[in-house]
Amino acid sequence: MSDLQTVLDGRWADVRNDVRAQMGELKLTPDPDASTEQYRAEIADAVRTLARSRRPHQGFDPAYGGDGDVGGVVAAFQMLGHGDLSLLVKAGVQWGLFGGALAALGTQRHHDAYLRDMMDGTLLGCFAMTETGHGSDVQHLRTTATYDADAGEFVIHTPEPGARKDYIGGAARDATMAAVFAQLVTRGPDEVSQTHGVHCFLVPIRTADGDAQPGVTISDCGVKAGLNGVDNGRLVFDSVRVPREALLNRYADVSPDGTYSSDITNETRRFFTMLGTLVRGRISVAGGAASAAEKALTLATRYGATRRQFSNPATGEEVVVLDYLVHQRKLLPAIATSYALHFAQNDLVGQMHELQKPGAVPDEERQRDLETRAAGIKAIGTWHATRTIQMCREACGGAGYLAENLLPALKADTDVFTTFEGDNTVLLQLVAKTLLSDYGRRVGQLDLRGKVRFGADLVAGTVLEKTGARSVLHRGDVRSRDYQRWLLAQREEHLIASGAQRMRKALAPGADQFAIFNGAQDHLLAAARAHVDRIVFDAFAAVADQHPLLDRVLALHGLSVIEGDRAWSVEHGYLTAARTKTVAKAINALCGELRPHARELVDGFGIPQNWLDCPLLDGERTQTSPADGQHADTLTAVG
Amino acid sequence: MSDLQTVLDGRWADVRNDVRAQMGELKLTPDPDASTEQYRAEIADAVRTLARSRRPHQGFDPAYGGDGDVGGVVAAFQMLGHGDLSLLVKAGVQWGLFGGALAALGTQRHHDAYLRDMMDGTLLGCFAMTETGHGSDVQHLRTTATYDADAGEFVIHTPEPGARKDYIGGAARDATMAAVFAQLVTRGPDEVSQTHGVHCFLVPIRTADGDAQPGVTISDCGVKAGLNGVDNGRLVFDSVRVPREALLNRYADVSPDGTYSSDITNETRRFFTMLGTLVRGRISVAGGAASAAEKALTLATRYGATRRQFSNPATGEEVVVLDYLVHQRKLLPAIATSYALHFAQNDLVGQMHELQKPGAVPDEERQRDLETRAAGIKAIGTWHATRTIQMCREACGGAGYLAENLLPALKADTDVFTTFEGDNTVLLQLVAKTLLSDYGRRVGQLDLRGKVRFGADLVAGTVLEKTGARSVLHRGDVRSRDYQRWLLAQREEHLIASGAQRMRKALAPGADQFAIFNGAQDHLLAAARAHVDRIVFDAFAAVADQHPLLDRVLALHGLSVIEGDRAWSVEHGYLTAARTKTVAKAINALCGELRPHARELVDGFGIPQNWLDCPLLDGERTQTSPADGQHADTLTAVG
Repeated sequence: MSDLQTVLDGRWADVRNDVRAQMGELKLTPDPDASTEQYRAEIADAVRTLARSRRPHQGFDPAYGGDGDVGGVVAAFQMLGHGDLSLLVKAGVQWGLFGGALAALGTQRHHDAYLRDMMDGTLLGCFAMTETGHGSDVQHLRTTATYDADAGEFVIHTPEPGARKDYIGGAARDATMAAVFAQLVTRGPDEVSQTHGVHCFLVPIRTADGDAQPGVTISDCGVKAGLNGVDNGRLVFDSVRVPREALLNRYADVSPDGTYSSDITNETRRFFTMLGTLVRGRISVAGGAASAAEKALTLATRYGATRRQFSNPATGEEVVVLDYLVHQRKLLPAIATSYALHFAQNDLVGQMHELQKPGAVPDEERQRDLETRAAGIKAIGTWHATRTIQMCREACGGAGYLAENLLPALKADTDVFTTFEGDNTVLLQLVAKTLLSDYGRRVGQLDLRGKVRFGADLVAGTVLEKTGARSVLHRGDVRSRDYQRWLLAQREEHLIASGAQRMRKALAPGADQFAIFNGAQDHLLAAARAHVDRIVFDAFAAVADQHPLLDRVLALHGLSVIEGDRAWSVEHGYLTAARTKTVAKAINALCGELRPHARELVDGFGIPQNWLDCPLLDGERTQTSPADGQHADTLTAVG
Repeated sequence: MSDLQTVLDGRWADVRNDVRAQMGELKLTPDPDASTEQYRAEIADAVRTLARSRRPHQGFDPAYGGDGDVGGVVAAFQMLGHGDLSLLVKAGVQWGLFGGALAALGTQRHHDAYLRDMMDGTLLGCFAMTETGHGSDVQHLRTTATYDADAGEFVIHTPEPGARKDYIGGAARDATMAAVFAQLVTRGPDEVSQTHGVHCFLVPIRTADGDAQPGVTISDCGVKAGLNGVDNGRLVFDSVRVPREALLNRYADVSPDGTYSSDITNETRRFFTMLGTLVRGRISVAGGAASAAEKALTLATRYGATRRQFSNPATGEEVVVLDYLVHQRKLLPAIATSYALHFAQNDLVGQMHELQKPGAVPDEERQRDLETRAAGIKAIGTWHATRTIQMCREACGGAGYLAENLLPALKADTDVFTTFEGDNTVLLQLVAKTLLSDYGRRVGQLDLRGKVRFGADLVAGTVLEKTGARSVLHRGDVRSRDYQRWLLAQREEHLIASGAQRMRKALAPGADQFAIFNGAQDHLLAAARAHVDRIVFDAFAAVADQHPLLDRVLALHGLSVIEGDRAWSVEHGYLTAARTKTVAKAINALCGELRPHARELVDGFGIPQNWLDCPLLDGERTQTSPADGQHADTLTAVG
């Protein structure tokens, strides 16, 4: 095992190695010409195999036969992203979304009845949240669950076509039960309806024979861009009755006579509390995306280290494509950023584990911080994956377009990650909202002297910006960790503070809040991104001394982020025009320095060879020219 | 017909309308769950339908039953990109690549024998250029065609696994003949072999029964990321004999006794002359990519104009997503750039038509310019398509991921466009090379006084850059066409001149040419991109007064390009940090101004409704809220 792998594996290294040993033997590369039904059947089988391994049990309550290793199960799940993404998503639906709702929103009556069967995979469920008309704005979905006190039942109903449950993984073929999110309605003694917001209900959707339950109409979403081993479907409910106990009642309940009760009186707060318990799904998607990007980078880097094209005029010998600067420029910064996101993911999983492990004490503030981080890292990480896998495909030319070389499936399967479990743009807006309200609180808590100083700082900031003098505040080497951290933190602070100033206008009487928010939307997204960039950088910095290569990998990641938004830094006086030119030069130099270690860097991801075998890498066996390492060393001398 | 459509359709509007009328009726949306074989069969049928329409005949010599309308046939081909991309590529292989090689590299003996059958589609061919080991560096492919004077035959041979012909469209299933590119070898009277570089040969690969010809091994590339209606395959030749006349001998010939002759004595020049005649393929790919991006934008824009999500706090009404600034920011600049590329494509096709129409006088300089433009626009246009289709998919959320909503196929099918018909990175390097050598000639032709002035300009440039004073040279409104043109032209000139300076070092005795070239590679790519950006802008500017909206669409396109590379402009003193901030504001304002016209803009692409029908657009029928136009007008007042 390489040292890099140890650092990357982090706290749950043992779990990861177990998955590598056990799952690496599975041939998880489906026949690309299989029919949708064949592929779905194959993945359903793999889910059963996974259940038998009892690995999914890790994350659940020991009282029901689980291991309570919340972080371990997410780390194990992430490893599946090195294999087949349909299995990852199908498993995520069963044990993450359906199982997660059951465990976190249900109470003992639900756990006693279903938790073991769910863990064992003998009860297959689905997670019916999204509706055709409401994906991002879940709070306003329109399915209703109306309590009928006479019968002691909830009536689950789809009132209009837009309220149809849509894209529901597991619904089209396998799931027998759905965790249905619906507006809970009760009727008072005066027969007036009262709505209490979105709650979750367990609704049987299929009989043991696989037929739809009476009143439930199931249809199939059909072929998708990818993830075709997952049976996404649609559910329409025509006054389907379920017992009162079907309500997952951890945060709210309805008594037999129809009285609604909850410890959380504010409806919006209640909604977000319930949603917050499901943060594991979002964290898992971020992990799956990270793994997929790592696999694509491993394939493209190993191919690029053997593929030759065009001759060096001096030697007449064909050049290994990874020795071209533009090829390095494509792959190496992406590897560096994958490292950074991997470490940020490890932090996130650790943080989640501490909050959700058996016996953990609820901590509202830390829970909120976890949700914000999860949203931000999911957005930045899934966009990184989409962009990186695309780049890797292109870096492998025509070979990268063939299904046999695995990149097409990686690309197609992960594409939807940017918009499911929260649309990335919407998630970054949530992050920005939290940042701004935290900032408001911080400013609000200042005493009078603090407020005066704060105001003066803002004025001084404007002066510094106008004169470009900010850039002289810090003159470190652009490669230094300290300097990069300073620049990323300044950018974050600046964007949040100025964003807060813009949004303050919305508080004025008669202000058109929508117009003010809408006009500042791009600013808010930039603030959120800057925040995520900074925490990802910090996560990497915290481990960067654990291996001699990591310092330079971190520097390359930091410089890539800085280069990507360098215009902003110049516009706001944090970088001079002259200095920003040195950023590109430093990136080129680091690419040259890391080139000889490219293979070592991707090997650090620790992907079982069996999941990488494809004709694309045949060149590794037939290579006869100078050893890769030697050749690269020569280049370093030049670089 | 909208006025915008007339401007976009340009010179071949009649051809385009014919295609719309005829082909728009075809249901070209294949069953996404069809097997590869079914899909291939369906596309093969569509190719026959196309042949019967005699539309492909348009591009060929009237002496053989064609119409000689070279530009028209490319415009018609481009329209297929609004339909099914597999059909587009399959047709492109038959009439563009195979037919193009036959027509342009062959002589009367080949035309008499095959041209009519090829046009009619009774002779199906393929274009066997790319090899497993050589895609971009075609000049060094390794298949050999050795002349055997005793038999009067060429022996076509695959000497090593890397010389296998790969990714050949049509090879796996349908083609009976291949245009094979191979190193032509003759033996002198002393039996010493002489190699004359790459030439093209007509080689039968299948019998009438569909079996492989003796000595030819055909295999299947299998499932690909997309374009699965095209049967890509591999060809290995084991000393396959073809008659001497199989050489397409327009530019070179071998006499019966084995004497090689060509009017072009330089081997490299001969190779590029032959390759240059095939420029139509590259232009066609650029056109197909443009159409695919337009279709994606039409779908996403029409969806965004009806889809609502989240409420306006003031009105309580759900907001149409296209009224959000960030949504406009995604779609409208991409629409503007699609307009720009569409006009650049029209220019390119017109230029090609003038050079290739029957009776056209060969003009080496204009041919070279055409090839450079084609390479540049193909690279920039296909990257735009990949990025834009991805963005459109995300802008449609989960719905955009379903095959039924057409975006997945657009994305998967066009992905390979960035690396086939020339890898984009390699193409931009070719563009840069031409720009630099043109620049060198220009400087070389200066008289002494000119050279002194030129040297002084470079010195002055450095001074201007250091003081940031360049930006005061031109102080127009950032929205003005004149200002944008100035900035784009300055950027182009600057990058070419400074690139030439860097490359001059390679001329020094003992210089490590590879290291110098490699170190400047990113600079050269930037120069090529700047050049393409400027010619695309000019192509749009030439027609921007033909419709009242186009001025603002051009401004939005120009500003997007400027924003994308604004860091460079600041670094080199063409924009001040303060001024570049106004660029983002101007883009936001233009997005607001063009929002009410979004539908009109995408309707201008003129895509037959039948090719757009999908559940994604169902919302257009059920819309009950305030009319889109009204709503948008309100926003404009705000914007």
